[in-house]
Amino acid sequence: MALIVQKYGGTSVGDTQRIKNVAQRIARTRDAGNQVVVILSAMSGVTDELISMAEKTAANPDKREMDVLLATGEQTTVSLMAMTLQGMGYKARSMLGYQAEILTDSSYSKARILDIGAERIKSLLSDGYIVIVAGFQGIDAHGDITTLGRGGSDTSAVAVAAAIKADQCEIYTDVEGIYTADPNICGKARKLSRIAYDEMLEMSSLGAKVLQIRSVEFAKKYGVPLHVRSSFNEEEGTMVVHEDANMEQVVVSGVTHSKNESRITLRKVPDRPGIAYSILAPVAEAGIGVDMIIQNTRLSNMTDLTFTVPKPDFKTALEIEKKVAEEIGAAEVMGDENIAKVSVIGVGMRSHSGVASKMFSTLARENINILMISTSEIRISCVIEEKYTELAVRALHTAFELDSE
Amino acid sequence: MALIVQKYGGTSVGDTQRIKNVAQRIARTRDAGNQVVVILSAMSGVTDELISMAEKTAANPDKREMDVLLATGEQTTVSLMAMTLQGMGYKARSMLGYQAEILTDSSYSKARILDIGAERIKSLLSDGYIVIVAGFQGIDAHGDITTLGRGGSDTSAVAVAAAIKADQCEIYTDVEGIYTADPNICGKARKLSRIAYDEMLEMSSLGAKVLQIRSVEFAKKYGVPLHVRSSFNEEEGTMVVHEDANMEQVVVSGVTHSKNESRITLRKVPDRPGIAYSILAPVAEAGIGVDMIIQNTRLSNMTDLTFTVPKPDFKTALEIEKKVAEEIGAAEVMGDENIAKVSVIGVGMRSHSGVASKMFSTLARENINILMISTSEIRISCVIEEKYTELAVRALHTAFELDSE
Repeated sequence: MALIVQKYGGTSVGDTQRIKNVAQRIARTRDAGNQVVVILSAMSGVTDELISMAEKTAANPDKREMDVLLATGEQTTVSLMAMTLQGMGYKARSMLGYQAEILTDSSYSKARILDIGAERIKSLLSDGYIVIVAGFQGIDAHGDITTLGRGGSDTSAVAVAAAIKADQCEIYTDVEGIYTADPNICGKARKLSRIAYDEMLEMSSLGAKVLQIRSVEFAKKYGVPLHVRSSFNEEEGTMVVHEDANMEQVVVSGVTHSKNESRITLRKVPDRPGIAYSILAPVAEAGIGVDMIIQNTRLSNMTDLTFTVPKPDFKTALEIEKKVAEEIGAAEVMGDENIAKVSVIGVGMRSHSGVASKMFSTLARENINILMISTSEIRISCVIEEKYTELAVRALHTAFELDSE
Repeated sequence: MALIVQKYGGTSVGDTQRIKNVAQRIARTRDAGNQVVVILSAMSGVTDELISMAEKTAANPDKREMDVLLATGEQTTVSLMAMTLQGMGYKARSMLGYQAEILTDSSYSKARILDIGAERIKSLLSDGYIVIVAGFQGIDAHGDITTLGRGGSDTSAVAVAAAIKADQCEIYTDVEGIYTADPNICGKARKLSRIAYDEMLEMSSLGAKVLQIRSVEFAKKYGVPLHVRSSFNEEEGTMVVHEDANMEQVVVSGVTHSKNESRITLRKVPDRPGIAYSILAPVAEAGIGVDMIIQNTRLSNMTDLTFTVPKPDFKTALEIEKKVAEEIGAAEVMGDENIAKVSVIGVGMRSHSGVASKMFSTLARENINILMISTSEIRISCVIEEKYTELAVRALHTAFELDSE
């Protein structure tokens, strides 16, 4: 007998028939003798409908009220799921954010979980209940409803799993697990049976949109084993766990890519202390996240500075930098939206050398020019021209021996 | 400056455009220097949609979970209304049942309000907020969501008005007020400018479906002046208040009717102590409300017992009584679904005699046979054949001098 947390996304509970299918799966887990806590998202599409309704009422709807509105989505699915399970003869009980005591800060629309009072959930489990918790929502210290941002139900699930010390947290989604590359562009991509938290973190932030990144941070911090799998079949998915010796023997676990990139270059910037701050602070103040930054010293007292921002923020950032360039006396501002980022990721890099040179030589062999490079302990990323993205991913996938047989 | 509670029903907030219209009205009340608390229902139709969704998941959905589900309806309207008012430049804040501390018992789907913690509402009012409270919903001692039954938002409004000692509670609805009779069948019906709580109570329970009866009991108990009016125009509606000398001068304030009646008669019942209980208890146990009861002694040791039940419960009640009749040795069970109840109501009856005889003679003059009679201090009701309903209402309306000029 184990204590299992299962999280089902919006597609999995998209209508009453799908809710019934998911209820069958929950029931099987319970029948096998496990204690089960279920975390649900809103039905797919509902959150977007609510947002569009809100936008009809006010140009810039208040965030506190938006969270009250959006929280109805999960409230609907948890009550329907509890009814369904009860109709099948199981003891089941829904819990909203405030009932599960999912305490967050007051950052409406992107709140962070501070604490979870697990007592009520545990007590219901002891009484034989299947507990159905509304994902995505919490409550702040004032008793106001908060939401955790897109994908927040993943974080709800992991946080609940950590609080009740669950044996496993299963994330049911519409993909079968984590792949060595995006199967849509790399036909030889394989499903990974295991992946380290740190690898998953790098993949999440690089565009493998399976799990909310914060949920992985949470899982790592509290050592919650995650099982990412499909709600539409019985296949084993991918376990996200602490890294182990086996993982370290593999040099690279996956190749990711992101086309959501653009870059801005300021040329011939007078090189004095604090100049990078003068250039980047106005962008950050506009709420735009800067990813990679490269500074090349050209001549004495002159430097070029290049940085990347998400593609949707490109125009805003470019306007900002044109003003900055005038103020600081830079010669020119250049922008480029036709770029992409490809990355190789693997905890094995910690103990294997030569990964970077292999990556660079692979791209060179395909005549792909590297525009920017950044690295972490377990990742190497290259910015390239966007049109080479698919070619680069496939070449790297083969070079690092990730291809399926 | 006054402290005003306004309650808007589902039709008044039926879509985002109507929400905007209501927001205009709220804003005008605020602009006039008043403090305003608003109670909202769910958008019209939403509650029925949710119920039908629930019925797809389970044959007999759990009442606790149903309340969690239904509460989303009001959660949606209050957040949208708060956003709308904020978009118009007003300080506004939504509150759900648990936030407004609307404490109820745990009778899911028909909970009763035990207490309201007015502090948070008052504090927001002092800070200049328009407070938008979700009607229909409360919270029980376990922190679970409860709902107050159909029309429960009326009771929410009155209870909040009582708790914060509001100067007036305005009930906005799709009719213009309380009429001397149903204008659909009595062309000469007039809108009453004032009506006593007790009269309204008799009207509510007799089928004038403007206000939930419990809300009127609450208003009477705490002396909350109710103003029932239309949300679609600026006309004054009907004030529901304590009775005063003027009201007592009027003999009859209104004529009501209900076609939702049926009657069951057990003939030749052995007359012994406790026999009425034997006949009526099984019906009550089936959750069927018995309204009028008449027992006629026929011969020594034999009696006839007739009672009325709501028409939708007729078949069930008839089956029950057939069994009862066998057990107690009654000769026969007869049923009749083609009946109606007409009533005249007025606090003036307390000081005027002759109302009953006038009612009976009026009906007699129209050749309408009276099947059953029941009275209260301020009401006389007659059961008649259903086909005479409209004729009876119009004749009584004229006889008691209620016709408009």
